[in-house]
Amino acid sequence: MDIDALLLSGACEQARAVAGGRVGVERLLQAQQDRIAAQQAELNAYVAVDIGARPAAGTSALAGSSFAVKDNIDVAGLPTAAGLRALSRPAELDAPVVARLKAAGLACLGKLNMHPMALGASNHNPDYGPCFNPRRAGHTPGGSSGGSGAAVAAGLCGLALGTDTMGSVRIPAAYCGVVGFKPSHDLLGLDGVVPLSRWLDHVGLLARRVEDIVAALRIVAPRLDEPDPRDGSPWRLAVVRDARALGASDEVQHAFDASLRRLAALPGVQWQDVSLPGFDLAGARRAGLLLCEAELHPMLADLVQRRPEALPTDLLSMMKYIERKSALDLGAAAARIARTGAQLTTLCSGFDALLLPTAPQTAFGMDQPAPASQGDFTALANTNGAPAISLPLPVPAGSLPVGLQLIGHRGHDLDLLQLSLQIELVLSAH
Amino acid sequence: MDIDALLLSGACEQARAVAGGRVGVERLLQAQQDRIAAQQAELNAYVAVDIGARPAAGTSALAGSSFAVKDNIDVAGLPTAAGLRALSRPAELDAPVVARLKAAGLACLGKLNMHPMALGASNHNPDYGPCFNPRRAGHTPGGSSGGSGAAVAAGLCGLALGTDTMGSVRIPAAYCGVVGFKPSHDLLGLDGVVPLSRWLDHVGLLARRVEDIVAALRIVAPRLDEPDPRDGSPWRLAVVRDARALGASDEVQHAFDASLRRLAALPGVQWQDVSLPGFDLAGARRAGLLLCEAELHPMLADLVQRRPEALPTDLLSMMKYIERKSALDLGAAAARIARTGAQLTTLCSGFDALLLPTAPQTAFGMDQPAPASQGDFTALANTNGAPAISLPLPVPAGSLPVGLQLIGHRGHDLDLLQLSLQIELVLSAH
Repeated sequence: MDIDALLLSGACEQARAVAGGRVGVERLLQAQQDRIAAQQAELNAYVAVDIGARPAAGTSALAGSSFAVKDNIDVAGLPTAAGLRALSRPAELDAPVVARLKAAGLACLGKLNMHPMALGASNHNPDYGPCFNPRRAGHTPGGSSGGSGAAVAAGLCGLALGTDTMGSVRIPAAYCGVVGFKPSHDLLGLDGVVPLSRWLDHVGLLARRVEDIVAALRIVAPRLDEPDPRDGSPWRLAVVRDARALGASDEVQHAFDASLRRLAALPGVQWQDVSLPGFDLAGARRAGLLLCEAELHPMLADLVQRRPEALPTDLLSMMKYIERKSALDLGAAAARIARTGAQLTTLCSGFDALLLPTAPQTAFGMDQPAPASQGDFTALANTNGAPAISLPLPVPAGSLPVGLQLIGHRGHDLDLLQLSLQIELVLSAH
Repeated sequence: MDIDALLLSGACEQARAVAGGRVGVERLLQAQQDRIAAQQAELNAYVAVDIGARPAAGTSALAGSSFAVKDNIDVAGLPTAAGLRALSRPAELDAPVVARLKAAGLACLGKLNMHPMALGASNHNPDYGPCFNPRRAGHTPGGSSGGSGAAVAAGLCGLALGTDTMGSVRIPAAYCGVVGFKPSHDLLGLDGVVPLSRWLDHVGLLARRVEDIVAALRIVAPRLDEPDPRDGSPWRLAVVRDARALGASDEVQHAFDASLRRLAALPGVQWQDVSLPGFDLAGARRAGLLLCEAELHPMLADLVQRRPEALPTDLLSMMKYIERKSALDLGAAAARIARTGAQLTTLCSGFDALLLPTAPQTAFGMDQPAPASQGDFTALANTNGAPAISLPLPVPAGSLPVGLQLIGHRGHDLDLLQLSLQIELVLSAH
């Protein structure tokens, strides 16, 4: 048993190894904790490790594996700080998503680093230190669920919980080369989660493989609609073939092109090129940011006024910015988000999924300014609450990871995941 | 054939009469238009009648019947004004909901009166005149879909389309003694609908019977999940037995009590009393109003500045009010709505439906001030997008109608309607 290979194989494979007697739960957990400790100084993915964690007895498809939790989701007995030490408080109860994974027999390893208050995508965190990308030294893992992306990519947990308000699960998944899934809005609930913008907030999952996401979703989603019977009907896929026209870098476009060529081998697919005419992606992303700032302000108002030095400069300037805005500015932003969501729902109504890159660029150096457009492609699916997933694309050796995003239909999460399983199979067949 | 009885029997019954050859389509339509003309002066339910309307050939369960459309939903060839003459413009296309009903063989009779811009619940309309309640002279039909409630109650259409942002379908249904259904958010889409607050906006249906709602929903909803198989499991119903504690009038509470006694006869029900602790119904309603005002302002800004006399005084004062509010006020409102939505979803997670009166009071005289609390019980289901229905309760002869509201689970519209059919049966059994 190559235990490090097992730690990098994903939650389902770990659970199968345990169930098949190939490895003991204790040995797996110890190896997992050793690996976390060995990489902590370099990656800083965790902000708290529960060394006493043991999995409950369970019979789920993931029993014996493990998970870790973004620091804005409550785990009983550990502090919840949402990446901001001034707001750190002990959590008394597990968030329902955490409780369900624990009850299913997964060990809860600890809390993961994140961009302060989930409002940013670099995971530059003055209070807990920056989290780094396991795929390139000195580079961002993306964010805001940066610790979740880094931990999954480095084999530091079986799977990770994150949150996604404008792309915060899918961006780090893309930057770190793992799978990131934002379910339909409201599917997982938001109890025990520090809110950013409740309209746009989602709890999401990051993992090595789509099968891990499916297994975890069946555990954490209390009401999950079974996929539609396909009866051999072809998948109808809309693809934004020219992502550069929307702002994607050459590197992203090339990886996307290469993958589309591979995906041509997918049996039974009707392809349709689309170009998102009439969508203002940057406008919708800015509108979402305005909502987040306005809804977050009450939680930070006291710090802004009395202890501004406790806030990272980017967060403080966003709070100062929103203080000068009017209700009409915010009303226009809300209307814009709603309009974009309606546009997206209409566009997708003729297709099973919309395909485009997850982010316009790859991970950047932590000392570089964060590109403003990072969330332009992901915020889209937060406007209508549709499920969306980022799958790692094959890239040349030594290149930074690139993500393929699929956007489906709200309430039809398992349909999108079924398609994702097929795409993953084709993309990993080389 | 008593043609007036048929006009008061609902859309399904009319379609059955046509399909069974008991009445000709032409005769039914002529009688319908005669009845509209005869009652127009008294009720003012319609703002435009299409005297040339003929149903397309159709085989749906509603073919041969008819519908009418609230004036904020596009019907090709007729003006859309949303109750405000200064904004009146011809519609080139049918809204998809309208197109689907036409294609299913229903005649589209015309456009219905409404509260200006759907922002109010009296249907006092300076531009098109007030619409009155067929159940009591000089009284409001409720709103904002007042014309829809009045037209259905007076037998002036087979069924009516309305919109519901904080209760605008369910309140007139309750006040006029008919059925009003707000589906899950996004189920029907909002194309061709004048927006108020897209987060809270829903297209809804008003009809004489629940069977009419079911038949219409199957026509207008492109993706409709079939109800969960119940396998004889009991309905779990949460009931707010003491509605007075939330602000309901004695008259409403008495009708509600009497109905709950009748509903005790429902077979296979587990009842649970709930009291909505921790909910701030008025706060959520005010927060929703703030969102509506802010999102509506861009559409009215020009009139506010250049032609304020073209706006009803209540609308003008709301627009002036929101101009003085900050983004933080609106952010707090959005957070409050989201919080209430999450609370409601959590409360309902253990039940199939939550039962409470539709409105705290009955219809009031058009010369009386509109009670501020009208939407307190209905706005609740707009915060989480759950399907909600208002059913007419039996009331003593000569009393004003009272509505029973049932709130279900988002995405499970037919489950709620299945329950509603059973409740309607018990309530009408006397």
